[in-house]
Amino acid sequence: MEEKDLPRTELDELGEFGLIDQLTADFPLRNASSLKGVGDDAAVINHEGMRTLVSVDMLIEGIHFDLTYCPLKHLGYKAAVSNFSDIYAMNGTPTQIVVGLGVSNRFSVEALDELYAGIRLACERYNVDMVGGDTTSSKTGLVISITVIGMAKDEDIVYRSGAKKNDLLCVSGDLGGAYIGLLILEREKVEFLSNPNMQPQLKGLEYVLERQLKPEARKDIVEQLKTLGIKPTSMIDISDGLASEILHLCKESKVGCQLYEEKIPLDPSTDRLSKEFQIVPSSNLVGGCDGDWLHN
Amino acid sequence: MEEKDLPRTELDELGEFGLIDQLTADFPLRNASSLKGVGDDAAVINHEGMRTLVSVDMLIEGIHFDLTYCPLKHLGYKAAVSNFSDIYAMNGTPTQIVVGLGVSNRFSVEALDELYAGIRLACERYNVDMVGGDTTSSKTGLVISITVIGMAKDEDIVYRSGAKKNDLLCVSGDLGGAYIGLLILEREKVEFLSNPNMQPQLKGLEYVLERQLKPEARKDIVEQLKTLGIKPTSMIDISDGLASEILHLCKESKVGCQLYEEKIPLDPSTDRLSKEFQIVPSSNLVGGCDGDWLHN
Repeated sequence: MEEKDLPRTELDELGEFGLIDQLTADFPLRNASSLKGVGDDAAVINHEGMRTLVSVDMLIEGIHFDLTYCPLKHLGYKAAVSNFSDIYAMNGTPTQIVVGLGVSNRFSVEALDELYAGIRLACERYNVDMVGGDTTSSKTGLVISITVIGMAKDEDIVYRSGAKKNDLLCVSGDLGGAYIGLLILEREKVEFLSNPNMQPQLKGLEYVLERQLKPEARKDIVEQLKTLGIKPTSMIDISDGLASEILHLCKESKVGCQLYEEKIPLDPSTDRLSKEFQIVPSSNLVGGCDGDWLHN
Repeated sequence: MEEKDLPRTELDELGEFGLIDQLTADFPLRNASSLKGVGDDAAVINHEGMRTLVSVDMLIEGIHFDLTYCPLKHLGYKAAVSNFSDIYAMNGTPTQIVVGLGVSNRFSVEALDELYAGIRLACERYNVDMVGGDTTSSKTGLVISITVIGMAKDEDIVYRSGAKKNDLLCVSGDLGGAYIGLLILEREKVEFLSNPNMQPQLKGLEYVLERQLKPEARKDIVEQLKTLGIKPTSMIDISDGLASEILHLCKESKVGCQLYEEKIPLDPSTDRLSKEFQIVPSSNLVGGCDGDWLHN
């Protein structure tokens, strides 16, 4: 449902605690390790015999997302999933999240329900529990800060620092799609602002738009590696772009690397649209939350 | 050092990763449970045989703090300590934090160094490790989201829900000081804006200003309870005010309660200043991050 079609209940009508109760209802706990979720000063987790992994991402309106073209449900889904991706990139399993939310009265209760519907869907699909949070006022835009907790056996954890000379550098999916998706959305926004009756022409663009608006984390790869008995020497999540992440990995592992431009996987639509935007895909691999990661 | 006296290096001069390197340097890991701190996709924690506690707080400029009178170092200290307080309120020990930061180019590198100096001091005093974070741009104000991780033996954890009929309700410190401190700072701000040459008269106000600007968490109480072999039936952190927190505790424990107004501890200066501001202390116990908590 589009935000503009939603009924509008003001945040003040529910009050802080009423709002928290409404937003955090219907988040059943799925993991045995989630001993206590929402409703106390802290959540309680039991990762008996396992290591606990922790990562945080902050998304700020006007910087990381534009609500002109990013539906709130998609935003919630992406905010959660891009965090899960950091845990998969350690070869671990995300198990819990806590959600910090700063929100102005420009947003209605229904709008926040949509945001949480996206977070809920991500939690369902990836079997993650929402165990706490902080919901507060903001004077201007929307701020979402999600901290993800995961677990892994000590011997399974893969760091950025393990790459060795002669390791093979692989990427788990095609690159650049999310960035092209963003360029298209920005282009359509300009068109829409100059002519609000314009209907966007998005046929053939579904793949890159989905990479931008509703990325997935590579749970499947971590599961496949486990099934195959393969433990990579190092892994990293790509969110700032291929070049940036490879430099992190090389720095942490104290190795250099050689990339084969022609072997970098691009989706055919990414390739086609790159030409339309007159950009060289390999010099523009700034994935913007692709959910992809590299392993050696 | 006052922010206005600091040299000014623009954020752009360091770049995102240079800034992160600078801010996160000099945070030595103190806890054996901190296996991997800053520098990978997630931090790695070993709470072998213990439960892991997680809580998040978000602080937004213009809502939770006003940089006109809240020095950045104090802000960093308070942001960290008020989070630690949530873990103590579970009868646990805070061990790690991850810091999400949204910041506009209005802030210099030196200003953020001050903020982190406050976080660093809090970590030193409370023996907590800073193990990760996310530093990002903001279009307007400063946003700080700190997630704290703590640990406790399963049998030591105290929930909000354990209060029983005839339990004694206690508060671990005097109340209302932070709120009076805020009223004074707001009053001085108004005076300052009308006459920038005005020197604030703060003699005799030190206690309430410290409660507002540099609150402490009650590590000491948790340690004393342990030494004395006392486990409270329920506990809660006071940050939204006495009335609000007691209602949470009663609701979670399914009990009522009786308060004795004359027995609520007030510092003499809080009492005196309440009269000056013509407020009744007991109806204004909205502590604003007092760091106090209740136990039955």
